[in-house]
Amino acid sequence: MPRHQMSDAQFEATRDLILENTGRLVAEVGLRGLSMRVIGKSVSLTPAALYRYFPSKDELIWEYSRRAIGELNAALLAVKEHDSPPLEAIASALSVYARFALADTDRFRTVFMEHDPSGYMRAMESAEMTAPLTILREFVRAAMISGDLEAHLETEGDTALAHALWAAVHGAVVLHLTMAELGSGALFETIAHIERAFLPNRTSRATGSGTVSTSDALA
Amino acid sequence: MPRHQMSDAQFEATRDLILENTGRLVAEVGLRGLSMRVIGKSVSLTPAALYRYFPSKDELIWEYSRRAIGELNAALLAVKEHDSPPLEAIASALSVYARFALADTDRFRTVFMEHDPSGYMRAMESAEMTAPLTILREFVRAAMISGDLEAHLETEGDTALAHALWAAVHGAVVLHLTMAELGSGALFETIAHIERAFLPNRTSRATGSGTVSTSDALA
Repeated sequence: MPRHQMSDAQFEATRDLILENTGRLVAEVGLRGLSMRVIGKSVSLTPAALYRYFPSKDELIWEYSRRAIGELNAALLAVKEHDSPPLEAIASALSVYARFALADTDRFRTVFMEHDPSGYMRAMESAEMTAPLTILREFVRAAMISGDLEAHLETEGDTALAHALWAAVHGAVVLHLTMAELGSGALFETIAHIERAFLPNRTSRATGSGTVSTSDALA
Repeated sequence: MPRHQMSDAQFEATRDLILENTGRLVAEVGLRGLSMRVIGKSVSLTPAALYRYFPSKDELIWEYSRRAIGELNAALLAVKEHDSPPLEAIASALSVYARFALADTDRFRTVFMEHDPSGYMRAMESAEMTAPLTILREFVRAAMISGDLEAHLETEGDTALAHALWAAVHGAVVLHLTMAELGSGALFETIAHIERAFLPNRTSRATGSGTVSTSDALA
């Protein structure tokens, strides 16, 4: 049915439905196995009809990733608004990242773990894709200014240290997702150890998962 | 041609050739897209002929992974034989892992990064798959005994700390491989920061890549 016969709400609802199916489909067939035909079939659309909603598979994956990153970003901004001490904010950011991954593992795999030989991710606007890292860097900078970091870490640039922190929590998450038998259930324990290594001056170590609850941060 | 017409050497040479193609094929079509037909075609064998070499795709991937892990293990054992101070041995192990990844990124992706819904990895013998982690844990334990670790890290168990170290370096590697634009060229810089966080007492920080050269460790 041609576009002009649909209301905008119908159009958006179908787009949402297509995007909702995307993570599950990528989990089944992989990013390289995904095609407009496979996507269309999942919502009972011919490839020709699907093209009215997304002009290409890359555009679809791009929009899917943009929404995912937007949600992660919103959760990190919630941490920022909490105005916790800098080291707590960093710990909360690590926890938010892990909870974002666990909340929808298909989505996390699609956006952060799938092999992407065609490089659509690299084609995404860099500032949009790296917004979460930018927030983490702000927390690191605040910790540097407040003097809460260990002396040997304070000498690092905020970008380099934010990269290392992100790498550590990302590694914990992806090992948990790919090799659950090596660390099943121990994901947040591993993250707590990463926090102890990077944030030894942190006063509150009761939870190892920061001060912002999942419901706060991913609402 | 039936098996008995081939010499053992011919048989092994063909098996090696099939395994050599595997990483590249997985990079192209993904683990989920890989089939005995695709594998056979790459070495001009019919699926029926291929089954003489590997009874199933899972067996093939298993043997491929076993060889890869065996090579990583050999490189880590080379570090152990170097008999470096414990913190240097840990730093070298992290470096060896990163270099193992970079030496054959298709292989690293196949063994450590591909989504594996059918769970063949989990079916692998655990001791064989986790041997590299076991060596890292030995280095961590040695550092605990020697007293070289920071006090707040010494209180952790060796397994938990080895997991956190592995997670950190694994994350650095996989972020480098999936999102090169976020850290291109900076992989070893990120690892150096991870080392500073986990191993602040390490005396030699000149290289950030340990004392064992690539040629030593992956020879």
